[in-house]
Amino acid sequence: MNKVVDAPAPPYYAVIAPAELAEDVRGYPELAAKLAELARAQPGFLGIESGFQRGFALAVSYWASLEAIEGWSRNVHHMIAKEKGRSMWFRKYVTRIARVERVY
Amino acid sequence: MNKVVDAPAPPYYAVIAPAELAEDVRGYPELAAKLAELARAQPGFLGIESGFQRGFALAVSYWASLEAIEGWSRNVHHMIAKEKGRSMWFRKYVTRIARVERVY
Repeated sequence: MNKVVDAPAPPYYAVIAPAELAEDVRGYPELAAKLAELARAQPGFLGIESGFQRGFALAVSYWASLEAIEGWSRNVHHMIAKEKGRSMWFRKYVTRIARVERVY
Repeated sequence: MNKVVDAPAPPYYAVIAPAELAEDVRGYPELAAKLAELARAQPGFLGIESGFQRGFALAVSYWASLEAIEGWSRNVHHMIAKEKGRSMWFRKYVTRIARVERVY
């Protein structure tokens, strides 16, 4: 997650996930590790990049197709439903689905 | 840069810029601040999100159009040409241009 992902030539897809974190993020690093593990097991997963600042997390995962993202997303929702829920850790978050068109 | 960007409804564009950093990044934080300033002055700029890990930086900027990205990119190249060059600070980097299609 601290390497530039070597993806194949575009087009492919990116899931851009920025989040403003709550003060108390106990339990979140463990969940994030499980989510990354789930992603790696998903067909069509190309890699993930992430970074942090005080109170802020940014992750970008790359996928071969929208279908691959949907498969992963269903698994993520199941897992989060079993956990305490995003609302505990995130003050604010969005998920942006983007089509990577050009890389240089 | 540590807030979730409130962009208008998609479609819009994202410039995803991951970089593996060299050991000696003297001068880079100052350049990064100037590049962000340039971005904010560019018509069509919607916002930027960024995060860091040891030896790694990830920035995603958002833009109303490809034309806005091209305008900014020209300015960035001029500025970097005047500076010592990316090769000093980055071991590896890519720039991915992506079209944000869905946000939830």
